Amino acid sequence: MRTQVAIIGAGPAGLLLSHLLAQGGVASVVLETRSEEYVAARIRAGILEHSSVELLEKAGLGDRIRTEGDHHRGIYLQWPGERHHLDFVNLAGRSVWVYGQTEVQKDLIAARRAGGQEIHYEVSDVAVHDDHVTFTDASGQSHRLDADAIAGCDGSFGPSRNAVAAAEKYEKIYPYSWLGILADVAPSTDELIYAWHPDGFALHSMRSATVSRLYLQVPNGTDPQSWSDDRIWEALATRLGHGQNGWKLTPGPITDKSVLPMRSYVQTPMRQGNLFLAGDAAHIVPPTGAKGLNLAIADVALLSKALIDKIKNRDPRKADSYSDDAQRRVWRCTHFSWWMTTMLHTSGDPFDAQLQLSQLKWVANSEAGATGLAENYAGLPIGY
Amino acid sequence: MRTQVAIIGAGPAGLLLSHLLAQGGVASVVLETRSEEYVAARIRAGILEHSSVELLEKAGLGDRIRTEGDHHRGIYLQWPGERHHLDFVNLAGRSVWVYGQTEVQKDLIAARRAGGQEIHYEVSDVAVHDDHVTFTDASGQSHRLDADAIAGCDGSFGPSRNAVAAAEKYEKIYPYSWLGILADVAPSTDELIYAWHPDGFALHSMRSATVSRLYLQVPNGTDPQSWSDDRIWEALATRLGHGQNGWKLTPGPITDKSVLPMRSYVQTPMRQGNLFLAGDAAHIVPPTGAKGLNLAIADVALLSKALIDKIKNRDPRKADSYSDDAQRRVWRCTHFSWWMTTMLHTSGDPFDAQLQLSQLKWVANSEAGATGLAENYAGLPIGY
Repeated sequence: MRTQVAIIGAGPAGLLLSHLLAQGGVASVVLETRSEEYVAARIRAGILEHSSVELLEKAGLGDRIRTEGDHHRGIYLQWPGERHHLDFVNLAGRSVWVYGQTEVQKDLIAARRAGGQEIHYEVSDVAVHDDHVTFTDASGQSHRLDADAIAGCDGSFGPSRNAVAAAEKYEKIYPYSWLGILADVAPSTDELIYAWHPDGFALHSMRSATVSRLYLQVPNGTDPQSWSDDRIWEALATRLGHGQNGWKLTPGPITDKSVLPMRSYVQTPMRQGNLFLAGDAAHIVPPTGAKGLNLAIADVALLSKALIDKIKNRDPRKADSYSDDAQRRVWRCTHFSWWMTTMLHTSGDPFDAQLQLSQLKWVANSEAGATGLAENYAGLPIGY
Repeated sequence: MRTQVAIIGAGPAGLLLSHLLAQGGVASVVLETRSEEYVAARIRAGILEHSSVELLEKAGLGDRIRTEGDHHRGIYLQWPGERHHLDFVNLAGRSVWVYGQTEVQKDLIAARRAGGQEIHYEVSDVAVHDDHVTFTDASGQSHRLDADAIAGCDGSFGPSRNAVAAAEKYEKIYPYSWLGILADVAPSTDELIYAWHPDGFALHSMRSATVSRLYLQVPNGTDPQSWSDDRIWEALATRLGHGQNGWKLTPGPITDKSVLPMRSYVQTPMRQGNLFLAGDAAHIVPPTGAKGLNLAIADVALLSKALIDKIKNRDPRKADSYSDDAQRRVWRCTHFSWWMTTMLHTSGDPFDAQLQLSQLKWVANSEAGATGLAENYAGLPIGY
């Protein structure tokens, strides 16, 4: 087998890359270890930055975002007794959309199917070599896929990351996790609520007009089953300020319960020879800043242009600077995600708690403070 | 002995309080354990915020700031290869003055002498009681000083702090110190340079057109004598970027060498009965944000009004809210000082170093980021 770009991973990064490459006249083959159903059903991020939406629209993938997504002007930032709305549109001229990664994935699968994209699901034994990839297909047959370039879009557990031999790795493990739930109940808020509380951080997010997504800071190693539904709703009510200033949290049937660890990870360079990394294969952010999916989209925006120039136009300049170009945004988002995370999660240290409260009050009340959060959350322009 | 306000400590906080009280028609007596010469010669902070200068001018203490101080529009922020000027006037409409604490102290001593202020230097055995202070004067005689209010302006080692029995104490010790020097050489820069460097933080400050003040991050417990003059100038040249973009650091004779530990400390409440704390007696900040002296001045601005209202106008409201009012600014400045400190000092962790660089680049290049630093550094309005 031979193609121009071998793409490892059929998540949003891999499929979007295959889509943008096809639009630029470059052929690709996508390999995925999981089944199509599994990949499509994975519950992940739910917030799209302004520039992610722009890019998806330009690529012809924006129709359902406009009709089924939920446009948010900003977020609420709160601590006991006070809730502040930060209006990103007023502050930074940009906004965000609530549109789940599962929906982005559906749009991408439909578009790639319409485009006749070759995707091999349920492959195994994927191995990355200098100018080819070897794998075993779902029927057990071995293949060699030769390619001009290989794109590692296979997340933090795929083989691409470790194929970059001389990589520098930066990592931080946080001393807390998120207990996340999905609930069949209308959200009790129009926009996301990020709540600092002495008991720990809480976040009220949503998936649709009838499905709420909520999170609680819990200790690492927490068993989600050790939290009864009642206990979860009680903790959410306390931390989100049920009953304060007339606000009410409406509970409902919990349909999913899971614990997410929190980690920052950056691997550099994002290129070795013909292998280019994008998205989670190169970096992981804690979810507090809603940056994971957006950063993958930004990587792919750069990488698709770099590979089209290199392969079709025989101009290697963007490919040569891809790692450096992408890293600027990677570190900006890594810093912002760390900043949001450490501002909002309690550490148990009373001095830290006072620093957090002072910072939250400043962010909410200073135009510079609020704008700093807004421009990072709503997202920097692609190519930053 | 009897007075309206017994002030413990004849540093800038205590003397400024006696000055503002006298202007408001309230009498005070100042007690100081050190000699007048010692207090006047202590080398401390060198930067006055916009609002500190305004307050000193309004109190008739601003003449020498205008003639002998050095007006700075902002600071330089740098990391290897890049130096950025942050113009506080453009960003936040405020500026700072380089004018040493020793000069403020001289002005205050002259003003209080002209005002006939009673100051007892070299006292000992100072003890704070409910409605009086006891002490032994320089000649060995014991006294009881009755007062309507007692102001604890005696820093972190004085007795006032510990007289607040039920205080909550917040503390953070930093894992590094500053090696500070005074040198008889014209500053190599027109405004302060805050430099991040893999070897550690460096700061180029100044005292006058002929005296430079420079600092190097060093490990805690460093003996200043273990750093030769040559080694200090070499480290400063490296960290401050001598030779980069044509900039040169000019060395000169070092006249003072000392090591300053870095600590954040806040004690709350700042009042117990008739005892009111101001300045270092209630809080310590690491020097990176230049906030210590300015915070003491802001405390005293609030406290002088509170005591005049309480004692002369029999209106206790400002005295009753003094601790809460002062704490807002205390925590803002405590957070800002922590933020500047942790952004600029290397911890040895490579992930932290990348976060710091990403933050520095954002602060220097984003208007919101730069304004956030500027409005905090140049100082919030008195009464914030």
